[in-house]
Amino acid sequence: MRTLKISPIPSNSRVNRYVHQDVLVTGEPINLSLKSLLSASTVLVELKMTGELTLRKSNSEIPLPQKKSLSPEDLSAPLILQANTYSEKLNDRTLDISLLDGEDRIIATYNLSFTVLQICLDVDADRDGVVEENNPHKADWKAGKNGYGAILLVNSDLDVDSSYRESNYEDSRLNGLLDIRDCSLMVVRQVGPKDLPSGCELIIWVSPKNSNYVRIFDELDSGSHELVGPGRKEGRLRKRDTYKDLFLAAEGLHYRDRNFDGEIFVNLSLVKDDETLYTDRVRFEVAPWIMTPNTLSPKTVYILRTSSGSNRDLIEDLRQVVGEANVQLEVVPPLPYRSDRWMQDEIEIGYSESPGHFMYVVLDSPRDRGLDDFAEEELLGTDFGHVTRLNKDATTLDSFGNLEVSPPVTFNGVNYPFGRILFGGDHPNAPQYSMKMAKTVRDFLYGQKIQSPVELFSDWLDVGHIDEFMTFVPVKTGKGFKLIMANTDKYYEVLRTLENQDQGNLRLRSRQGKITVSELLKDEELKQDNARFQTYINWNRDILKKELGLTEEDIIDLPGLYQAAGNKKRAETFSPNMVNMLVLNQHLAIPKPFGPKIKGECQLELFVRKSLEWLGFTCHFIDDWEPYFLGRGEIHCGTNARRKPFSQKWWEV
Amino acid sequence: MRTLKISPIPSNSRVNRYVHQDVLVTGEPINLSLKSLLSASTVLVELKMTGELTLRKSNSEIPLPQKKSLSPEDLSAPLILQANTYSEKLNDRTLDISLLDGEDRIIATYNLSFTVLQICLDVDADRDGVVEENNPHKADWKAGKNGYGAILLVNSDLDVDSSYRESNYEDSRLNGLLDIRDCSLMVVRQVGPKDLPSGCELIIWVSPKNSNYVRIFDELDSGSHELVGPGRKEGRLRKRDTYKDLFLAAEGLHYRDRNFDGEIFVNLSLVKDDETLYTDRVRFEVAPWIMTPNTLSPKTVYILRTSSGSNRDLIEDLRQVVGEANVQLEVVPPLPYRSDRWMQDEIEIGYSESPGHFMYVVLDSPRDRGLDDFAEEELLGTDFGHVTRLNKDATTLDSFGNLEVSPPVTFNGVNYPFGRILFGGDHPNAPQYSMKMAKTVRDFLYGQKIQSPVELFSDWLDVGHIDEFMTFVPVKTGKGFKLIMANTDKYYEVLRTLENQDQGNLRLRSRQGKITVSELLKDEELKQDNARFQTYINWNRDILKKELGLTEEDIIDLPGLYQAAGNKKRAETFSPNMVNMLVLNQHLAIPKPFGPKIKGECQLELFVRKSLEWLGFTCHFIDDWEPYFLGRGEIHCGTNARRKPFSQKWWEV
Repeated sequence: MRTLKISPIPSNSRVNRYVHQDVLVTGEPINLSLKSLLSASTVLVELKMTGELTLRKSNSEIPLPQKKSLSPEDLSAPLILQANTYSEKLNDRTLDISLLDGEDRIIATYNLSFTVLQICLDVDADRDGVVEENNPHKADWKAGKNGYGAILLVNSDLDVDSSYRESNYEDSRLNGLLDIRDCSLMVVRQVGPKDLPSGCELIIWVSPKNSNYVRIFDELDSGSHELVGPGRKEGRLRKRDTYKDLFLAAEGLHYRDRNFDGEIFVNLSLVKDDETLYTDRVRFEVAPWIMTPNTLSPKTVYILRTSSGSNRDLIEDLRQVVGEANVQLEVVPPLPYRSDRWMQDEIEIGYSESPGHFMYVVLDSPRDRGLDDFAEEELLGTDFGHVTRLNKDATTLDSFGNLEVSPPVTFNGVNYPFGRILFGGDHPNAPQYSMKMAKTVRDFLYGQKIQSPVELFSDWLDVGHIDEFMTFVPVKTGKGFKLIMANTDKYYEVLRTLENQDQGNLRLRSRQGKITVSELLKDEELKQDNARFQTYINWNRDILKKELGLTEEDIIDLPGLYQAAGNKKRAETFSPNMVNMLVLNQHLAIPKPFGPKIKGECQLELFVRKSLEWLGFTCHFIDDWEPYFLGRGEIHCGTNARRKPFSQKWWEV
Repeated sequence: MRTLKISPIPSNSRVNRYVHQDVLVTGEPINLSLKSLLSASTVLVELKMTGELTLRKSNSEIPLPQKKSLSPEDLSAPLILQANTYSEKLNDRTLDISLLDGEDRIIATYNLSFTVLQICLDVDADRDGVVEENNPHKADWKAGKNGYGAILLVNSDLDVDSSYRESNYEDSRLNGLLDIRDCSLMVVRQVGPKDLPSGCELIIWVSPKNSNYVRIFDELDSGSHELVGPGRKEGRLRKRDTYKDLFLAAEGLHYRDRNFDGEIFVNLSLVKDDETLYTDRVRFEVAPWIMTPNTLSPKTVYILRTSSGSNRDLIEDLRQVVGEANVQLEVVPPLPYRSDRWMQDEIEIGYSESPGHFMYVVLDSPRDRGLDDFAEEELLGTDFGHVTRLNKDATTLDSFGNLEVSPPVTFNGVNYPFGRILFGGDHPNAPQYSMKMAKTVRDFLYGQKIQSPVELFSDWLDVGHIDEFMTFVPVKTGKGFKLIMANTDKYYEVLRTLENQDQGNLRLRSRQGKITVSELLKDEELKQDNARFQTYINWNRDILKKELGLTEEDIIDLPGLYQAAGNKKRAETFSPNMVNMLVLNQHLAIPKPFGPKIKGECQLELFVRKSLEWLGFTCHFIDDWEPYFLGRGEIHCGTNARRKPFSQKWWEV
């Protein structure tokens, strides 16, 4: 509480009258200490107020009457002065203090007058998309349906047609009518008389650190003007705005990250002659970037058409599946993207939302190969934002085939209603597998908090992506999904069954060419390698079971076989890797495995169909041999999907 | 379903090949009748498709394979052709039809090719403030928490600093960044290849009637451009927008009214060479104007300072009360408003809202006296709209002291969660009281639907306002409010009690001067007049009990006395009319009645305090004799309040 200090009139002064003008803020009490004014001869202090002004003793809730005489003893503790309504004109509240001696003579008179201002900075703290008036929780945060606390979107989309393909937050202005929809509004409420008391100013300010994370714009009725932003931690409000509600727009500049937990405070201060008389404060929480698991319906599938035409047939096959699934297929031309076909690896499409605002946001991987500019050129646009994290020495683990998200799970009483982010890295007990995803990306992923990441072990794979051994598919029962994992034992099981049925001469296609079932079963080195690879898969399986709270019933094992690659430490796929599928609701676009056939029926396909069709899935086996498998990827690696957001809001959980 | 008609190749034609290009819309089947193509010699029809295209017999759900031979009999019923994914390039779906004779010779070939476009017009049909993709209910309406249907706000506020004080919907452009927040967004989804098939256009259109109620803007990224509006029922989309999501803004122009129930349909048509191939449609419901009852907390009280200074003391008294109630007082200067002090009568402050959008909206009465321009000059602004209904021959019943709203009520199983609008008019059985509120205003009030109005009888009063005999106050128990009514019997009861206590000589102030209790009780004419006036009050009492479902316990009768006015048919107040109070939460600013006093205590005030204090109210009796009572009004007539909106959303009930 501010203390108003009045200097006593010196006893040798020729005048016995002191005039003082001050400023109060509606509803804000100040301390008024009169003790120091008393002289030895004072026996009575007469107080007289005019205007809406209350004075009370600090130990009482009951206001004194407008006229009151007090004894010097009454003034040993300070008085509390308060006004609740803003002034109609300057100095329209007065308090006259007269000190009287034992003979009722006036020793000194103090004529105080006050101008009362309303100072209020408002946000949408109740999260209905509308800024309300002075929400008591406007500087707090509470998650949940009945929670509170304002939310700020990072304005990472691009709302104007521009050849300069950058997110809107890159510049220090609002870009057209659509741009303001990505901002959170603030309102500075009417503050009293049209003329502010002389020397008074209203300042909007944030901490130096926060000024890197938020821009605040003023003058929205005539374009926009940056009040606060990087390198500018405070700005003063225009004078002409101080007598009516003033609308400001706050624009988020930075997603949550390791060094930024998303909390931003914005302050409005009333400053008079460089003294801060009052500060009101609001809090924003920056909306997280949210990934969409396979259990959410896809809207658009992206695939690049290679310049060689190698995936022409696959695109048409995929188009049929996409059509059946009632999804759209967006075919990306090769030319601007150096025919880089690994659509999964360059980007991850998520979204971000605040009450009444929504945008898809593509996370652009530090991989930065041919498709590097795809996100900026084709996706970035109105309500489609873009964010990237860089790594000059990007490795294959930085590709986003190595980044997935589980469906919603509950484990050990902890609810993850948006699932958990999964990405692959090293193995703590195997120093030969020490590669990790770029720290910048990991920091970003952990920073979002809402989908608390789990790090898996993918460095045992030469390409090193978790989508080479796992995926999720939506089912209507139980937890709402099944985890599908590649399993080398299952692969051998299929082959052994065939050999037992005297079908050892059946041929299948592998990376090295055609091979019979029996030949394959005889390859002891391959068997040992795969036993080793299976222990890595099992290690991941255990982590997934533990961190996602899964049981054996939640997991479906599909046949998969790997082979040692390069230096033999790591693995590559032996034949098309069916787990690397594209999941489109009940339609699964699965790499055609080219396994051994009986009566024209591939026995690997048969196994998969038996594993999945009873759950309602339609399995579409698509030949990706030439354009993807031989390049050491599959359909999932070559595609990407934009999916529906969660219907649940992140701030409600 | 559209039918694609193909003209058979004439039998005498030199060519036997027919080439046709057409346009399909994703997910939209068309009829394909091949029957007329068959000649007598046709024994087989070979069909061959490429691209994502399905063909099925009209009596089957199973698509035919990409290559299929049919017999002429198979073609007796039309085939159904459909594509679900939009084209990558023009004519990328083909259907070749070959007619063969008995010797497998080709009689004729029909080469059809199709370009598939996605045509989708989207709105925020699920009411979360965000436009979602192709909501199945986007052309419907259902109220309730799980309801659907988009909502349109009338853009009646003023978002730019302008000397031209008119609502934003008055002009045919969007006015700055804040203006677009009052619009409902629509999205036209990506429609296929960058080049539309030749002759194709996308048209946004509404019915001629609806074009008066909505404007639709395009080119939001570069300002705005009116596509549809009054006198312009359709507009074509820019060509360059047909290959990506296009954002449009819809602006409501007209509140619901007698001839407009608030329903607006907006259509998006794909037109090729003047033939409409497909139309998508969305529905908007115009948000109603909602009044705020006394049970909602006031935020600002408005009062005009008279140029004579007659209400100077009253304003200061009121400021104290307003301060105690934690409300703000806005004192309006007299000069621009010809010192018209009847603030209650010129305006009614309500509000209007849609998901994520809110504005206060002042209904400007047709009274149009000194304060006529107050609403436009002082209230109209950002998120403060303005609407008026005119009446060239306005009467005193058109003043909004004659317009109130009840708190939420339930009656006979019908729930009115926003209360019911109340206004005064004539008496059906008393032709001498035939005045009514202006039809334009009544039509507007009934048109809002949500607060289903009840017409009371106020023409028995010379000023003719229902606030002269009733008000509502908030209480914490029961229905959450009490109805307070003036009661002449209670007035006489107080006086008779005093006379019985030998206090008949006590004096009280009346419009005619001071008078003793006994003198007043002897005035038989006054008594008879008041008995008659009480029957009118009782008539209203019965209507209110019936229409609001009230019991006697919900009503508090306060002493009130009237006297015959002018031609003696009608009534004016005899002394300050306490029911004409300003209700500020638990603080009641009540006209000081100047009744008979015992030991300095006014016996009328005592009665009122006894009636109200036990309910938690603080009664503030304010002297309004000179500035208001003598002008035949009271505190309520001289003030107005902006109150908090209902927390419940109108579309959720």
